Amino acid sequence: MTQPALSEAFHALQSTSPLVQCLTNKVVAEITANVLLAVGAAPAMCDTPEESEGFAEVASGVLINAGTPSAEQYQGMRAAIKGASKSNTPWVLDPVAVGGLTHRTRFCQEIVQRHPTAIRGNASEISALAGMGSGGRGVDATDEVTSALDVARHLAQAHNCVVAVSGPQDLIVSADRITWLTSGDPLMQRLIGTGCSLGAVCAAYLGAAADQKISAHDAVLAAHAHLGAAGSHAAASSSGPGSFHAAWIDALYNLTDQDIFHAIEIQEEHHNA
Amino acid sequence: MTQPALSEAFHALQSTSPLVQCLTNKVVAEITANVLLAVGAAPAMCDTPEESEGFAEVASGVLINAGTPSAEQYQGMRAAIKGASKSNTPWVLDPVAVGGLTHRTRFCQEIVQRHPTAIRGNASEISALAGMGSGGRGVDATDEVTSALDVARHLAQAHNCVVAVSGPQDLIVSADRITWLTSGDPLMQRLIGTGCSLGAVCAAYLGAAADQKISAHDAVLAAHAHLGAAGSHAAASSSGPGSFHAAWIDALYNLTDQDIFHAIEIQEEHHNA
Amino acid sequence: MTQPALSEAFHALQSTSPLVQCLTNKVVAEITANVLLAVGAAPAMCDTPEESEGFAEVASGVLINAGTPSAEQYQGMRAAIKGASKSNTPWVLDPVAVGGLTHRTRFCQEIVQRHPTAIRGNASEISALAGMGSGGRGVDATDEVTSALDVARHLAQAHNCVVAVSGPQDLIVSADRITWLTSGDPLMQRLIGTGCSLGAVCAAYLGAAADQKISAHDAVLAAHAHLGAAGSHAAASSSGPGSFHAAWIDALYNLTDQDIFHAIEIQEEHHNA
Repeated sequence: MTQPALSEAFHALQSTSPLVQCLTNKVVAEITANVLLAVGAAPAMCDTPEESEGFAEVASGVLINAGTPSAEQYQGMRAAIKGASKSNTPWVLDPVAVGGLTHRTRFCQEIVQRHPTAIRGNASEISALAGMGSGGRGVDATDEVTSALDVARHLAQAHNCVVAVSGPQDLIVSADRITWLTSGDPLMQRLIGTGCSLGAVCAAYLGAAADQKISAHDAVLAAHAHLGAAGSHAAASSSGPGSFHAAWIDALYNLTDQDIFHAIEIQEEHHNA
Repeated sequence: MTQPALSEAFHALQSTSPLVQCLTNKVVAEITANVLLAVGAAPAMCDTPEESEGFAEVASGVLINAGTPSAEQYQGMRAAIKGASKSNTPWVLDPVAVGGLTHRTRFCQEIVQRHPTAIRGNASEISALAGMGSGGRGVDATDEVTSALDVARHLAQAHNCVVAVSGPQDLIVSADRITWLTSGDPLMQRLIGTGCSLGAVCAAYLGAAADQKISAHDAVLAAHAHLGAAGSHAAASSSGPGSFHAAWIDALYNLTDQDIFHAIEIQEEHHNA
Repeated sequence: MTQPALSEAFHALQSTSPLVQCLTNKVVAEITANVLLAVGAAPAMCDTPEESEGFAEVASGVLINAGTPSAEQYQGMRAAIKGASKSNTPWVLDPVAVGGLTHRTRFCQEIVQRHPTAIRGNASEISALAGMGSGGRGVDATDEVTSALDVARHLAQAHNCVVAVSGPQDLIVSADRITWLTSGDPLMQRLIGTGCSLGAVCAAYLGAAADQKISAHDAVLAAHAHLGAAGSHAAASSSGPGSFHAAWIDALYNLTDQDIFHAIEIQEEHHNA
């Protein structure tokens, strides 16, 4: 990703302030909303069976995060996906803790067939979603990101979507492109919801990109870069995960596209599908 | 509102520490509880069908916030309103995102008939609750506050309640009185739950006022003044929405009634019903 | 508790990073997860009927917090207790607001028969759980901690568990031992979830202690000491509950076992069962 491409994605988000519908777990609902507000998007945590379909038709992007799924929220998720499909609203699947937990694994393996625009998770979640690997314990990644490359390529090609694997280095994969991103700080692992918020910000960047000539791959990559860059900026002035939390939100709000670009490292690998 | 009237409302809250039952959306439950604790009230997020009626009978005030209503919470809300009515517990209706979303619009238009003590929302929510206007997208106000004056007067008279419309200037309306309040800071829009917490603090001030000769109008106005004053204080020492969050809670806890009065501007307009 | 005993419990937690399954109320889910991450544990907020039993079999410890119980979560709680029992996973019962509210009182009085490893609450909740006392209003303790001593001894002996009563001084009681702990700061009462997080950290210390020769009494005591010590450290650099929140999480993350030991006072009383 070039600096102009990052800037274009960044300014698309700033100028459109996309409305992001989040069907997410109750643990991270608040930080997810605050992260979206900080980067310039508008959150709406609309997830009931009655309202989700209609809302997804007018939203700019939708997040489906399987973190603490109740039966009612599952119904809401199916409805939101239906609404998103009708109106071509981009949607992101975050298969939290898929693998170790049979119930949600089955659900995520079902809805991944409905053509998500992007999938975001750690290596063990992505492997388990593809029906391989043993899955993680909660939200920890027990597989290595690198070992997930083959799985991510398989998923990206099978579902024609962008697959993002979070880890010490993030891996973003689409049908004909592989990007490695180095950014962030280990303190991010000590704050709940940094990963879940990333899924929501992917939906925001995808929503902003939809009407412009920005690829889904670049949108997802820009989301990862924005959150990671804010992470390393915030860690520099923090004395623990509590002060990091506030500094991270501030950095998400204050960083310019140039700040972001200078805080990250990108390696691109183009290939034939 | 005079400074003595504000002081009286403020000291009523401090001396009674009202117990506020919040039936609110899951995104803002934590910040709402922390705001109530910071201003000196006692929060209780009791919202199940089984417990809500009995709890509302002993609570000092009740908040009904329609932000992420599940079927179970709807039942709890009906039960809480029943309990509040039985024991004359003041209750506040916050019709979050009413207008754009049919299901909750219908629900809020139903329960507004049950005589809330106060209604609080942005201009588009208030208009939609009254059956006018197109409604907002999520929690953003797309109508102007000023255009909501007629609607607010209509609602205040029809339901004999206080109607508060949040915006750049807040508007508080009751049957024979209109107050414009200037306070706060734009950063409050970048922190989720500042508006939803306001509904809860209205319930706290109303609960504290109930046994004293403080009008509901003054109680609702004092709640808006307290939160707005804390907003401008906090913004002065913040570098983004993350540091603002902590500074706002600190200010809510530390501001005296005099600090509050000096940080706000009030314009009163009395009229005949 | 001696300094070596505290250090042993502390290092057991740091070296095993126990996976703590929290079935808790929606108000405090986020801060509970962040507190667990800060002290070195791994949170998983897995609480649905479908997943809770299997997860409890592999978790290191389980928290059952009755704060905002939905019908679905009640089912999840029964399932988690079943799974914990099968695999001897330690579990903690936090009977939030039991006493004033009939529905949850009945539920907690039912599940306390299932042999929790520890029970944690304030004096009025503990009394009400034992079928005595009038119960509190929400999460405030209206009884004195000292008056709960007899009740705690009764519960500890009846259920062969550790009973911890939170108050100005904390009281930790098991069949043959009584410990009084002085720690913390009154600001902790102004931040929602400090008590609920304590239940989760008890489960973390118990999970870490399980395979080592650390008693359940010492594990529960260490959890109280860790959170209380962080409270007094954080209060020293805070200007209100907002800045306290961040400072408390930072202190939980930064304090060493020696820092903790020096910030608390312990009085032990051994007795025959």
